[in-house]
Amino acid sequence: MSTVLCFCLRGIIPGPIEFTDEVLFANAHPSMSHMSPDFARVFGDCIRMTRQLLYSEDAQPFLIAGSGTLGQDQVSANLVEPGENALVLHSGCFADSFADCLQTYGANVDQIKAEIGGAVKEADIENALQAKKYKIVTVTHVDTSSAVLSDIKAIPNVVKRVSPDTLVVVDAVCSVASEEIQMGAWGIDVVLTASQKGLGTPPGLSILVASQKAVQVFENRSTPVTTYYGSWKKWLPVTKAYENNSAAYFATPPVNLIYAFHASLTQIMQGSVSLEQRFKLHQEVSRRVKKAAEEIGFKGVPLSEDVQANGMSALYLPDGFTVSDIVPRLLKKGVVVAGRLHASIKGQ
Amino acid sequence: MSTVLCFCLRGIIPGPIEFTDEVLFANAHPSMSHMSPDFARVFGDCIRMTRQLLYSEDAQPFLIAGSGTLGQDQVSANLVEPGENALVLHSGCFADSFADCLQTYGANVDQIKAEIGGAVKEADIENALQAKKYKIVTVTHVDTSSAVLSDIKAIPNVVKRVSPDTLVVVDAVCSVASEEIQMGAWGIDVVLTASQKGLGTPPGLSILVASQKAVQVFENRSTPVTTYYGSWKKWLPVTKAYENNSAAYFATPPVNLIYAFHASLTQIMQGSVSLEQRFKLHQEVSRRVKKAAEEIGFKGVPLSEDVQANGMSALYLPDGFTVSDIVPRLLKKGVVVAGRLHASIKGQ
Ligand SMILES: Cc1ncc(COP(=O)(O)O)c(C=O)c1O
Ligand SMILES: Cc1ncc(COP(=O)(O)O)c(C=O)c1O
Repeated sequence: MSTVLCFCLRGIIPGPIEFTDEVLFANAHPSMSHMSPDFARVFGDCIRMTRQLLYSEDAQPFLIAGSGTLGQDQVSANLVEPGENALVLHSGCFADSFADCLQTYGANVDQIKAEIGGAVKEADIENALQAKKYKIVTVTHVDTSSAVLSDIKAIPNVVKRVSPDTLVVVDAVCSVASEEIQMGAWGIDVVLTASQKGLGTPPGLSILVASQKAVQVFENRSTPVTTYYGSWKKWLPVTKAYENNSAAYFATPPVNLIYAFHASLTQIMQGSVSLEQRFKLHQEVSRRVKKAAEEIGFKGVPLSEDVQANGMSALYLPDGFTVSDIVPRLLKKGVVVAGRLHASIKGQ
Repeated sequence: MSTVLCFCLRGIIPGPIEFTDEVLFANAHPSMSHMSPDFARVFGDCIRMTRQLLYSEDAQPFLIAGSGTLGQDQVSANLVEPGENALVLHSGCFADSFADCLQTYGANVDQIKAEIGGAVKEADIENALQAKKYKIVTVTHVDTSSAVLSDIKAIPNVVKRVSPDTLVVVDAVCSVASEEIQMGAWGIDVVLTASQKGLGTPPGLSILVASQKAVQVFENRSTPVTTYYGSWKKWLPVTKAYENNSAAYFATPPVNLIYAFHASLTQIMQGSVSLEQRFKLHQEVSRRVKKAAEEIGFKGVPLSEDVQANGMSALYLPDGFTVSDIVPRLLKKGVVVAGRLHASIKGQ
């Protein structure tokens, strides 16, 4: 038994991360009806702040009780019709689950696999898009199994040049609020994430933001949506109502988590540092964590600096050490680590 | 604009209900990894207590981030294969959503509609089951739009007699922990519910319990499961691992809500009154609420006493009054009510 150790900023497991007192206090909010005007305003704020956090003006957020995986479901069942093609860029094992999810809802999936510790190369993406028509391309911003950071600013450019109708979907479960994401300017069509990582809120909230282009593609479907719980046909009117500070119902939202998310977003958006400074700070701290770890003998998993994530670190064990040597020593120092995940580097 | 008013025990809106301090405190639990042994034990306890609450020995609980509606999804996508028949017993509008959900995943749905304020008659169920082979029958234990209580002890008997292979699915979102449900002895195959009503936990947790017969039917499917996020193929190994107090991963569970659920279940199962006494108390309090409401001019929606729910009350407005007369008066007294839902009695 040995493994790759994944460190996450603020916590040191790859999520859930630590919560601030304000967030925990909000999570203990007394019972509120999801149909009450007070709650509708808080929900509306969350929708607006989520959009701002992704530097988007008009994209459509969906906040639903669930986890990050529910975002993969929403994409697969609302944006891809059975029999259509999807291209999955593989930089770690969360691409495998996205591919599995897409196939469950009837997509034909091709994957481009990067080398271990690397991201998929632009030239390979370009070739794939020239060879076949794809409805969507998915990319994992930071894959939690490898800590590889993909270049989600460059990829939409390639896609736009070669295949302008193809939607760019970013799995940002491990990156939102730790890494900069300029959804509007970079031309990203879907950002999907969850509450429990960079957003510092307890797990249980699926957060997905769709560009107006993606919403249009959804609305122009020729076949019915293939999910019920995650159906945008059901959720679009609800999210639009809450955005206007009025309540609507399809399925009960996770009310307390919305209060907690509100507290966390408020701290992120109105804290003492600007969003820009926040991302810079994350970068700096990340470099220091990785440097310190390397000084004591760990080796970072990603091979080159340009693919190193800032919100988390994945490290190879020092030569000659095993997990059973290291973990008890770290535990003694109060450090919790997660051993995981990428099948081909298990045990290192 | 007028409507039916729905009262729920403990709260007075049909959910979410009020939470105890212990539950809120647990919901503010500091960050815990879903992969930690401590959390796995708590999750394991929740699985075992959920089963006990439903008087079942061997049924299989699934606890997933989501809401009650996700339980309808799980049933539709795991137990019914595309093209199979489902019979939906309609005693209020939540049967319409179940029918919609089943159809989304490819089932052929027939509905038997009860009269307003009544439950579906056993003779009608018997006739339907004799006319056609159904994979499942669904019944809403307490429909939140009508407060009608269906007889979920008698219905499985009818099904077993006429069509023993047909699975009996109970939508118990509005009844678990308020009304008695003897899953094992009464022969119920699925009970689906959510955290936010009788269970007194904030919304965000989908709770579903499947009999071993239902699990067998799932395992004998001849076509792949049609959902990803709610797939029992993914969740069965996870729930079995947690039941053995060890962690497993498919998608992140709502960790804090599991702590809150644990606190609530502990209060319900180990409180000063036994489960039996709890259900009796609910009955008594419910009679008193309905009596008091009738004394001031309201009329209960369900027509006969045998279909009156104990966990909630739906009331017609006193003759000559409208919602805009009543709601401000109740609000002044600190009473929040929900106006709702059943299309054909809207405005009364
Ligand atoms: C990159 C990535 N995608 C998807 C997921 C799945 O999210 P969840 O576990 O919240 O369902 C994770 C979870 O760690 C992740 O790191
Ligand atoms: C009887 C019944 N079924 C299903 C649901 C749907 O549950 P949720 O809103 O948690 O998705 C409700 C919600 O009120 C309900 O009362």
